[in-house]
Amino acid sequence: MKKVKVYVTLRESVLDPQGSAVMGSLHKMGYGEVEDVRIGKYMELMIEDGERNIEAMVDELCHKLLANTVIEDYRFEIEEAVSQ
Amino acid sequence: MKKVKVYVTLRESVLDPQGSAVMGSLHKMGYGEVEDVRIGKYMELMIEDGERNIEAMVDELCHKLLANTVIEDYRFEIEEAVSQ
Repeated sequence: MKKVKVYVTLRESVLDPQGSAVMGSLHKMGYGEVEDVRIGKYMELMIEDGERNIEAMVDELCHKLLANTVIEDYRFEIEEAVSQ
Repeated sequence: MKKVKVYVTLRESVLDPQGSAVMGSLHKMGYGEVEDVRIGKYMELMIEDGERNIEAMVDELCHKLLANTVIEDYRFEIEEAVSQ
């Protein structure tokens, strides 16, 4: 069993209105030191070991479903997990 | 300037319908090896160095705004960032 951590973030050049809204709220709450906020997704997948190469598979499913590669970047880490 | 990476995840005991939906889609796409999907948030904050202790401040703003601690856990990492 593998535990895969996937991070999906908006590309640098893409506006992040959700991040801007959070930054606005933080400023109103008195945290003026916060200069930028970018919001992305964090996903944890548990994947059974099989015949397929896990790294190639995760890359494929990020491309096909988990990230929109037109506006988002992704990266992932694969860890050994204890089977439950 | 500090770069703070914040990870917000649903607590173990809380159902994750978004994760279940993604897992259902992955199964339909032929990725039956995926046994579990949990979806959380990943945030990057750029924070100006000031008088306040950054660690205490980030903890405070996670509690107050970024995470709903009733159903979510959070953790964060603070890195030195190059000022732009």
